[in-house]
Amino acid sequence: MLRTNLGQRIPEGMRDLLPEEVAVQERLENDILALFRQWSYQKVLTPTLEFCACVQPDIEQDNILYKFFDREGRILALRPELTMPIARLVSTRMRGAELPLRLCYGADVYRNTSVRHREFRQVGVELVGSDQELADAEVIALAVEAIAALGLKNYQFNLGHMGIFSGLMLEAGVDEGMQAKLEEALARKDMVGVESWVSLSGLPERVQELLLRLPHFHGGEEILDEVLGWSERPAIREAVESLRKIYRYLDDFGVQANVSLDLGILRGFSYYTGAVFEGYVPGMGFPLVEGGRYDTLYADFGVPQPATGFAIHLGNLLEQFSLSPVKGADVLVYGSNVTQVIHQCQALRAQGKRVEMSLGSIDGEAAQKMALRKNISEVLCVRESVS
Amino acid sequence: MLRTNLGQRIPEGMRDLLPEEVAVQERLENDILALFRQWSYQKVLTPTLEFCACVQPDIEQDNILYKFFDREGRILALRPELTMPIARLVSTRMRGAELPLRLCYGADVYRNTSVRHREFRQVGVELVGSDQELADAEVIALAVEAIAALGLKNYQFNLGHMGIFSGLMLEAGVDEGMQAKLEEALARKDMVGVESWVSLSGLPERVQELLLRLPHFHGGEEILDEVLGWSERPAIREAVESLRKIYRYLDDFGVQANVSLDLGILRGFSYYTGAVFEGYVPGMGFPLVEGGRYDTLYADFGVPQPATGFAIHLGNLLEQFSLSPVKGADVLVYGSNVTQVIHQCQALRAQGKRVEMSLGSIDGEAAQKMALRKNISEVLCVRESVS
Repeated sequence: MLRTNLGQRIPEGMRDLLPEEVAVQERLENDILALFRQWSYQKVLTPTLEFCACVQPDIEQDNILYKFFDREGRILALRPELTMPIARLVSTRMRGAELPLRLCYGADVYRNTSVRHREFRQVGVELVGSDQELADAEVIALAVEAIAALGLKNYQFNLGHMGIFSGLMLEAGVDEGMQAKLEEALARKDMVGVESWVSLSGLPERVQELLLRLPHFHGGEEILDEVLGWSERPAIREAVESLRKIYRYLDDFGVQANVSLDLGILRGFSYYTGAVFEGYVPGMGFPLVEGGRYDTLYADFGVPQPATGFAIHLGNLLEQFSLSPVKGADVLVYGSNVTQVIHQCQALRAQGKRVEMSLGSIDGEAAQKMALRKNISEVLCVRESVS
Repeated sequence: MLRTNLGQRIPEGMRDLLPEEVAVQERLENDILALFRQWSYQKVLTPTLEFCACVQPDIEQDNILYKFFDREGRILALRPELTMPIARLVSTRMRGAELPLRLCYGADVYRNTSVRHREFRQVGVELVGSDQELADAEVIALAVEAIAALGLKNYQFNLGHMGIFSGLMLEAGVDEGMQAKLEEALARKDMVGVESWVSLSGLPERVQELLLRLPHFHGGEEILDEVLGWSERPAIREAVESLRKIYRYLDDFGVQANVSLDLGILRGFSYYTGAVFEGYVPGMGFPLVEGGRYDTLYADFGVPQPATGFAIHLGNLLEQFSLSPVKGADVLVYGSNVTQVIHQCQALRAQGKRVEMSLGSIDGEAAQKMALRKNISEVLCVRESVS
């Protein structure tokens, strides 16, 4: 069967990694996972395929799932993220584990969108079983340290809180449909859209003004007092004071300088309920880190627990690093007596050397050329010995 | 949305890995990949999703693929193995790489079958660009050393050759349909099936007898001479002499004692053309290693090259190893002053310690209990200091 007649050889959004790219991606992932381990997070793995209902955060995002039927005729989906699969795991095989539970992962996720990458590597953590601001601060500080550990410069984190927007909506009695429209426009920072929805909303003028100002509340602790000047509603006050506590803890962790408060943040997944944050590096048009608190998701899985966590989109990072040619073996071994060549290779490997064995009969010049092209430092000719 | 009302929480054939299981699987994979690296194999990664035509070895196996449509309406499939994706990669982005090319991988593969695991981890190698028996011997020896490196005992490899069966078929003029039936029955070691097809085949009696005896040719080099006693047909002689050469090289590699010749082996994927082998450990009902030569597959991708390789089914191996509880952090830090607790944790992490921070206010007894349950060796109470 000739397989060359496909218009494209690899589906849109998919990617091969050559040895030099694998080397960088694995180094980044291993460095981050070592840091997670140092903060006492333990690695788990969930399957690529889940029942659709287990990984479908909400109706709007239904269309990002790769879905299909299994042999039993049920709808499966490729995981688009790990937070929900880990909630499923904690509510089943890990039920009864000592809380708070700190878990981490490194895994590929799949989103059937029109963006450049539809399969990408994520590393992340979930901290389950604590509703304390200290838990939020821990995962944010860990996210900042993870990005710092990669050697990236000029990264920037923004920290917001779902409770400010949802408090406004709740207390102004906005219906769900309108809330979803407003939230979507705000999340996309589509201020024209926000304005048009706000003007249709029939909300009190002061709430309208605050909504329009939300994306402009960006900075240090002073913006929290500014918000309180606009609204003293209990739900909003609660969210603001929670943010203040988290922000001060970030100072204790030594990472506050890398984090700005940003009340316009509304994260993409519907399960977030509290503090939410994102991390950026210059030149990337999308967040490198996304995370936040999700205190109601575990109840969906039958074990109500507060939780917080984040994911780092590792796959998108490769282009930020320069690739170096992969080092070849330590030595290329060749010679006319195959038995002796094999013995020599095995002896060198037993000494811990990386050894490439020549498979054809080549002369010294050809061996030197091959070593050069394969980035092999040394060439060894096994001279035939009469034993 | 309540997500607990699914009859089963995880699709059939899928599996979660808890921390102690991740630890074992990663150790096995890392040990094997380190060995591959020592033999000068370089790691590549291909996407989980491929165009269906790229990963469909033949019509019969069509039904093992997980297939679905992408946004563009094309049929995609989850990779059921890595040999074909790597052939695609070598024929596209790696075209022009210095041959022979030694590549390796560690990746999940997906087969929509009724067996226990439908997603499983594979590690393997591909050696592209050499038709020499020395190349076959290298990958077989590497497979044996990989299994030995895992610390498994009593493993056994069998080595056969597709050319003996196909030579018989070719020279006896058997049509494709009959050949497929016979091959399938032989591959399944279904001797009743083989007998009934052979009796229907109209083949010369001597060929019939040889076919029925094929699965019984199992042992050392002596069986090669035995086969030649039955048939002197050139294609069969060629396959036999090729096997003999490989088998003798295995002695040079020091692994011959672990390999038996077995002329009844016919591997499952249709792309195999030459020497084929499989590795077993006692108590596993299926091969742990499968590999062989495939000299026509690269032509399908437009770059004709001989090649050989193997895959180790790592996921199936976990139950062969005992799991130990995962070690918790080095130290659990608690105390009443959160700022001082955070500072202490950060200081200990800077010293390279694995640190778990208590998130609530707990007393010494509670801290000791938590440390015990989390397998944390040390507990540190930060006494409040007036600064």
